Amino acid sequence: MNDFDLVIRNARCATAADVFEADIGVCDGRIVALGTGLGTGREEIDADGRWVTPGGVDGHCHLDQPTTDGSRMADDFLTGTRSAACGGTTTILPFACQMKGQSLRAAVEDYHRRAEGKAAVDYAFHLIVSDPTPEVLGVELPELIREGYTSFKIYMTYDDLKLSDREIIDVLAVAREHGAMVMVHAENADCIAWLTERLLAKGHTAPRYHAQSRPMLVEREATHRAIAYAELVDVPILIVHVSGREAVEQLHWAHGHGLRVYAETCPQYLFLTAEDLGISDDDGHGAKCICSPPPRDQANQQVVWDGLESGVFQVFSSDHAPFNFDGPEGKFTAGSGASFEKIPNGIPGLETRLALLFSHGVETGRLSVQQFVALTATNVAKMYGLYPQKGSIAIGADADLVIWETGLSRTIANANLHHAVDYTPYEGMPVSAWPGMTLSRGEVVWRNGTYLGAPGRGRFLPCGLPEPARPKTRPNGGGA
Amino acid sequence: MNDFDLVIRNARCATAADVFEADIGVCDGRIVALGTGLGTGREEIDADGRWVTPGGVDGHCHLDQPTTDGSRMADDFLTGTRSAACGGTTTILPFACQMKGQSLRAAVEDYHRRAEGKAAVDYAFHLIVSDPTPEVLGVELPELIREGYTSFKIYMTYDDLKLSDREIIDVLAVAREHGAMVMVHAENADCIAWLTERLLAKGHTAPRYHAQSRPMLVEREATHRAIAYAELVDVPILIVHVSGREAVEQLHWAHGHGLRVYAETCPQYLFLTAEDLGISDDDGHGAKCICSPPPRDQANQQVVWDGLESGVFQVFSSDHAPFNFDGPEGKFTAGSGASFEKIPNGIPGLETRLALLFSHGVETGRLSVQQFVALTATNVAKMYGLYPQKGSIAIGADADLVIWETGLSRTIANANLHHAVDYTPYEGMPVSAWPGMTLSRGEVVWRNGTYLGAPGRGRFLPCGLPEPARPKTRPNGGGA
Amino acid sequence: MNDFDLVIRNARCATAADVFEADIGVCDGRIVALGTGLGTGREEIDADGRWVTPGGVDGHCHLDQPTTDGSRMADDFLTGTRSAACGGTTTILPFACQMKGQSLRAAVEDYHRRAEGKAAVDYAFHLIVSDPTPEVLGVELPELIREGYTSFKIYMTYDDLKLSDREIIDVLAVAREHGAMVMVHAENADCIAWLTERLLAKGHTAPRYHAQSRPMLVEREATHRAIAYAELVDVPILIVHVSGREAVEQLHWAHGHGLRVYAETCPQYLFLTAEDLGISDDDGHGAKCICSPPPRDQANQQVVWDGLESGVFQVFSSDHAPFNFDGPEGKFTAGSGASFEKIPNGIPGLETRLALLFSHGVETGRLSVQQFVALTATNVAKMYGLYPQKGSIAIGADADLVIWETGLSRTIANANLHHAVDYTPYEGMPVSAWPGMTLSRGEVVWRNGTYLGAPGRGRFLPCGLPEPARPKTRPNGGGA
Amino acid sequence: MNDFDLVIRNARCATAADVFEADIGVCDGRIVALGTGLGTGREEIDADGRWVTPGGVDGHCHLDQPTTDGSRMADDFLTGTRSAACGGTTTILPFACQMKGQSLRAAVEDYHRRAEGKAAVDYAFHLIVSDPTPEVLGVELPELIREGYTSFKIYMTYDDLKLSDREIIDVLAVAREHGAMVMVHAENADCIAWLTERLLAKGHTAPRYHAQSRPMLVEREATHRAIAYAELVDVPILIVHVSGREAVEQLHWAHGHGLRVYAETCPQYLFLTAEDLGISDDDGHGAKCICSPPPRDQANQQVVWDGLESGVFQVFSSDHAPFNFDGPEGKFTAGSGASFEKIPNGIPGLETRLALLFSHGVETGRLSVQQFVALTATNVAKMYGLYPQKGSIAIGADADLVIWETGLSRTIANANLHHAVDYTPYEGMPVSAWPGMTLSRGEVVWRNGTYLGAPGRGRFLPCGLPEPARPKTRPNGGGA
Repeated sequence: MNDFDLVIRNARCATAADVFEADIGVCDGRIVALGTGLGTGREEIDADGRWVTPGGVDGHCHLDQPTTDGSRMADDFLTGTRSAACGGTTTILPFACQMKGQSLRAAVEDYHRRAEGKAAVDYAFHLIVSDPTPEVLGVELPELIREGYTSFKIYMTYDDLKLSDREIIDVLAVAREHGAMVMVHAENADCIAWLTERLLAKGHTAPRYHAQSRPMLVEREATHRAIAYAELVDVPILIVHVSGREAVEQLHWAHGHGLRVYAETCPQYLFLTAEDLGISDDDGHGAKCICSPPPRDQANQQVVWDGLESGVFQVFSSDHAPFNFDGPEGKFTAGSGASFEKIPNGIPGLETRLALLFSHGVETGRLSVQQFVALTATNVAKMYGLYPQKGSIAIGADADLVIWETGLSRTIANANLHHAVDYTPYEGMPVSAWPGMTLSRGEVVWRNGTYLGAPGRGRFLPCGLPEPARPKTRPNGGGA
Repeated sequence: MNDFDLVIRNARCATAADVFEADIGVCDGRIVALGTGLGTGREEIDADGRWVTPGGVDGHCHLDQPTTDGSRMADDFLTGTRSAACGGTTTILPFACQMKGQSLRAAVEDYHRRAEGKAAVDYAFHLIVSDPTPEVLGVELPELIREGYTSFKIYMTYDDLKLSDREIIDVLAVAREHGAMVMVHAENADCIAWLTERLLAKGHTAPRYHAQSRPMLVEREATHRAIAYAELVDVPILIVHVSGREAVEQLHWAHGHGLRVYAETCPQYLFLTAEDLGISDDDGHGAKCICSPPPRDQANQQVVWDGLESGVFQVFSSDHAPFNFDGPEGKFTAGSGASFEKIPNGIPGLETRLALLFSHGVETGRLSVQQFVALTATNVAKMYGLYPQKGSIAIGADADLVIWETGLSRTIANANLHHAVDYTPYEGMPVSAWPGMTLSRGEVVWRNGTYLGAPGRGRFLPCGLPEPARPKTRPNGGGA
Repeated sequence: MNDFDLVIRNARCATAADVFEADIGVCDGRIVALGTGLGTGREEIDADGRWVTPGGVDGHCHLDQPTTDGSRMADDFLTGTRSAACGGTTTILPFACQMKGQSLRAAVEDYHRRAEGKAAVDYAFHLIVSDPTPEVLGVELPELIREGYTSFKIYMTYDDLKLSDREIIDVLAVAREHGAMVMVHAENADCIAWLTERLLAKGHTAPRYHAQSRPMLVEREATHRAIAYAELVDVPILIVHVSGREAVEQLHWAHGHGLRVYAETCPQYLFLTAEDLGISDDDGHGAKCICSPPPRDQANQQVVWDGLESGVFQVFSSDHAPFNFDGPEGKFTAGSGASFEKIPNGIPGLETRLALLFSHGVETGRLSVQQFVALTATNVAKMYGLYPQKGSIAIGADADLVIWETGLSRTIANANLHHAVDYTPYEGMPVSAWPGMTLSRGEVVWRNGTYLGAPGRGRFLPCGLPEPARPKTRPNGGGA
Repeated sequence: MNDFDLVIRNARCATAADVFEADIGVCDGRIVALGTGLGTGREEIDADGRWVTPGGVDGHCHLDQPTTDGSRMADDFLTGTRSAACGGTTTILPFACQMKGQSLRAAVEDYHRRAEGKAAVDYAFHLIVSDPTPEVLGVELPELIREGYTSFKIYMTYDDLKLSDREIIDVLAVAREHGAMVMVHAENADCIAWLTERLLAKGHTAPRYHAQSRPMLVEREATHRAIAYAELVDVPILIVHVSGREAVEQLHWAHGHGLRVYAETCPQYLFLTAEDLGISDDDGHGAKCICSPPPRDQANQQVVWDGLESGVFQVFSSDHAPFNFDGPEGKFTAGSGASFEKIPNGIPGLETRLALLFSHGVETGRLSVQQFVALTATNVAKMYGLYPQKGSIAIGADADLVIWETGLSRTIANANLHHAVDYTPYEGMPVSAWPGMTLSRGEVVWRNGTYLGAPGRGRFLPCGLPEPARPKTRPNGGGA
């Protein structure tokens, strides 16, 4: 009789803190033993000294999310989770998005229907709160938090999603009372609208003007404001997709004042610049890289790298928002040559997130492998209440694992990716590492370039309360 | 036949990243298995669901270190390591201190003699470089780094130890070339001297004037200067015993500019204030709390707590510097009522470090248990080249472990401590947690209030290169 | 025949830059000569070596301004300008306040009616823009700017006055196009509302809770936001009534980034603290000191003093807002014991502004007399387009002058003031200097404790374009 | 009989605060009347509505100052003051420089001998304290301060001049006790030495490496240190020749903490960049622009312009240090092709200072004409105890005046300058304004391109105590 369902031998394991060589014993989809010379497994895999990391947890991605402008997301839970698995991500947290006027519960139920029977890896839901009525704040949110939807995203921009300042404060107050985590999209809507009007009035409609309509001050101001509201309510927040220096300075300010302000950044702020949105007005391909905040410049890329290393950022997500470049539901859903403000925001990135960071972060020496694990898995799981089930190689955790191939000479090509989007913004970018094998709860879902997942095997994960939202004792002061 | 030499059952294990419940299997003093339902051990300990953390690594302590003012350290390796073990610390890094004019090699050899046959837990040496002659810089330091002495401390104050600014730069350059870590005592000697002269001229000689002779600006200026030199040479440094806001602001500045500036703080900056140095001129007992930098005030304590939480600090050490209060070799070696500048600097703290932080940090919710482990063990081992042998609960690591008693109502009393010093600055301070059992390489050295260590069982640890000193690739910029 | 209408002999003159001893020759109400041994005057005054400064220009005061809550301002142009003259102020800039729905032109005409025949010193109008309709932005404002109403105040708080963020940006854009100056009341309305609701819900209604409902972060956030919008539009702004450190830090930030962000502070931030709003719940007299932002604490007072000296502040105004303490139209217009948020905001200060700053600033050595002149007269005139007619002792300027009595031992008493308010918040405060004589266009309106002004002698001053709003050439950069 | 020795009619006068049109009446070399339609003068000049400003006060220039490296300054008091007069500067403050081992008194006497009979405009002396012996600190400095030498410069770099940190503190303490002003050359000598050694070791000897040997951090560190010492001693200081952002940030920090830290910048930081030191290794002409700190880049130029406008800088000086490019006593005194560290530091600029700032500052709208006057004359006179005799157009002040020609299309050419140096670093730079006439104590010394001064007419000016060094009352705090 075997001791384990599965043993992975000779793994060079990395957690968010540690590196060690061990065999990994798995039973019932969970890690039950780590050690040298473990007993036998029904199935055995020889990692052969390769890096084994926790499967990625992508804390920010959009799949099959309804839109209001005629566009349609190219990825649903089937293609999205397939793409995730092939890129080493074993848990995703997409968004159940409330439309204005809609009940939050209805949004959640609708979103469950979209996921059911399709997901190949496990998933939990963030909520997007776009209409915080008294019913939503007083009844629905508290109930949903109790049921495992413990993080919500709020927007400071986008007409159909953005909250008023008072609504932001009210949502933060609910989060504080119930221990949930609020993610903030921090861009100032009025500045963007004013700049956009002026650009359009001058006939500046090409994709590259998207970047000019959202300069750094737009993000800095909103970041400062969000931090002020978090300080007011005395609650942690997480600023998503931070793009560069001026926002990072606000984060430093907050930390220097003892505030729990967490932050996420994304591959687009390390690997793209505003020039990728086009360097001339007839460069429509720039639409492929339209996302918000827009990528900045090389100096800001360096600031983001520095922030990953120094710990300003806790979370590295894809912000996968999958729109085709071609076709009537894609980037030009408003018509060929439509002006930049009519182009759906967002770029695909679920599958490339881990390989890009491992290649350009770990293999270059900028980041330790432990930092990589923390940013892509462990911290994410903790921030959103999925820890310790997800995000680590530890006794009792789900056996969600990636075995890495390194030392590769490969370039990213959309032809090799498994999402349903017709392009990747990272086409042609070199990577030296890629997941050789991905396991989800002990099952191999990606091996040697072959996708082995099955639709519907992924499970919904009700989330616990986020770790960093624990109340903070400040005996020597009051609230922040 | 047993599977293991030792099995610790039902451990609620914490690493710097993770928390998990497991049995811990130990062979030959090392952790060889983690899992549920491990096989049998020759010896078995039931942790009964208690927290089990890596044994503490104290990265900053002074034992049996020669002095020049007639004082003598009360603790040698025998009493010091005994005290460490009873407080849950299983690895110490005291200093082999070069006297001006002395060969560094001679200092190391002398210090080995002092340790030999006495240490009850494992130890490595930092070097103190006080006389960086060409021979020291060009020959001795490179050799000693290769032999496992990979971190050195330099002083910006103290007449018998301090380096000139050019010497600081030269030492940093050696560290950069060979991958060593430089610890910096950052206080401005000239400011201190000037203030001291003025205080003495006014007859202000009581212990409490020690704090007035070293105000925050003294530390801020030296911190800024040290950071500038690290930036010049493009090498990481570690600022030791940071005491409050103005120095922390310099650290934030450095991080915001992409510099690898690490920092340590100590219990005295969380639990003492300048008032502990006396509130009147006839309060000689204030001498007990004379250390440098001096403790500040409550607002600065809060800044230090915030920095522990936000990650400004990587290391939490004791800076154990054991002088008796009474007696001719103690605080008043220069005579009863000697003026403050003649009182040996330093306070004992090896044994109380872990319990104070666990009680007032973890049990109050300010810090997660993982942060506690990182600050007291894992990060320290990484900073000084002892990782992965020391500092974690992971396969292959030494079985240096603490099993905690929590929920206690106890106060610290020197009568219950095991160092040879005649006082503790924390007398009467409540603690709710204390190590119930300490294991060093699988051997129990402290259990239920009884010290079980044996002189000489502790081993010298040659250090590898510190992790954070790895070269940093900055493709988008130049040197930092 | 006399050479001059008036000669003031032996004046120790101070301008914003200079100090010199001279006779001052006046013809037709203007200074036409400065020199030693000037010819004769029809009238002669011997200043006897006393300080002679430009008459004060109060850039921020409210007189006879309509309210919506049943309160009524105790001072109209008659009592207000009388009070100004007796305190050494010879030019005032109150506000023509647009009510929502009202035409700006109608507000201006109404306000002219209120002033006519009453003013004893000269006056100009700021506009308050509370309803920036397209008509207001596109037609009325440009016309009014051309007619001499070249500065407007906008509010970020107060329900009946505050603009939306987009409206703020639009008003700034008009200011930029036409060269006007925008004054910003920077407090975050939503934070205040949220805190107020929570305080009221706890039954915390006493005046002192006013300060708790508007903590420093409320002001810091709005200041940061206003600066961001000024940066967006590339236009100077002036932040009014800055109260302490966190707002001052934002000003420093702006200056460090090359932005033209000007700032005003007021006596209440130097001489009052939050404790003046009451130290217990039954202290209704605290209502006398309710103003917004509220006074802070001693540390913030020091920051404001430092900012006056270092040049962070350009303007020192009274923000005179005269409500009686007693009576049905006063502080308790909403009923005796009405809760703090129903108490009209504002305190009187027109008459005491100069004496307080001269006594506690100049006579103590904190400020030079030139800084005093700059802050209370010259800079104000420049900021609001009244220079060089007002604000200086220079050839061609109006002969608006103050001859100072210094070395006094006097305390402020409302019984001795000339406004129509039934209290002063500075009751009992010592002053060592007071205007001995005030001249307006060469006429003595205050001498030796006797008011000599006549209603209606004050003239309306159409303003030119503010000096600091001149376009800024930045050859090496773009807009700020 | 004439009323005045001289009347300047129709002057568009500018002071540091004011602008006014007036006739200027002069008797005995002093301004005795300002007014419209003044009486007659023995001599009359029609300014015809042109700008008339106070004659420039150059607070930082080196003339005939002994050197130790074989070089010799090309300008003595004769050519230097001639050059000053032709450029509109009527007061200079060169340095009486103490050599190590020399008495300060001897240095002063020697320097008087160098000036006597040669100077064409008035002059005062700063001291350079390079050897602060107890005699110097305790006797000579106090005596010399009383005699009118009330400002001293200290160096943090240059082997033959630099003070130790303790010496800096001691000099500051003397300044505090006696009310003198200390000017600080803030560059870190050890960093420069270390970088220089490394550059030379690589064979990098060309002039352009001078800039690489003194990067911004060298200046930032020393600035921070100097500020810390000023804070320690609680005394104002003035940082000379500030070159860019990192130092400016330190100044902002100081102002935000209530410290009186003043600052000077110079034309080279507005009009030159590091590229002017050469863009290739065989560009020896770069030696012409070798000065310390070195010019930086365009972004730093913008920071310096912003600081002039916002008031971070109080003083704009030339730092005239006149070495020929050619000849055995010039830039290559150590031999043709000598390495950069052997090239005398300094560039000429006495004559071009005012025209450059007026043309590129005032005429472009960056600065007001009042700011120009403040920076080039009034503030300088106040900082160094020459006010109100020098630095303003005011009753009683010396009639040192410049009548400007503006709207010119001219370029700077060394052929047109009056110093004795064989080059100007500003060759070919356009200027739109130049002094049409310069008067010194009522005498025309420069008119329509002709120099009319006479050697020896310039007088030595004993200085009073600097205004900003007045004691600061801080009732709410302690020392700064």
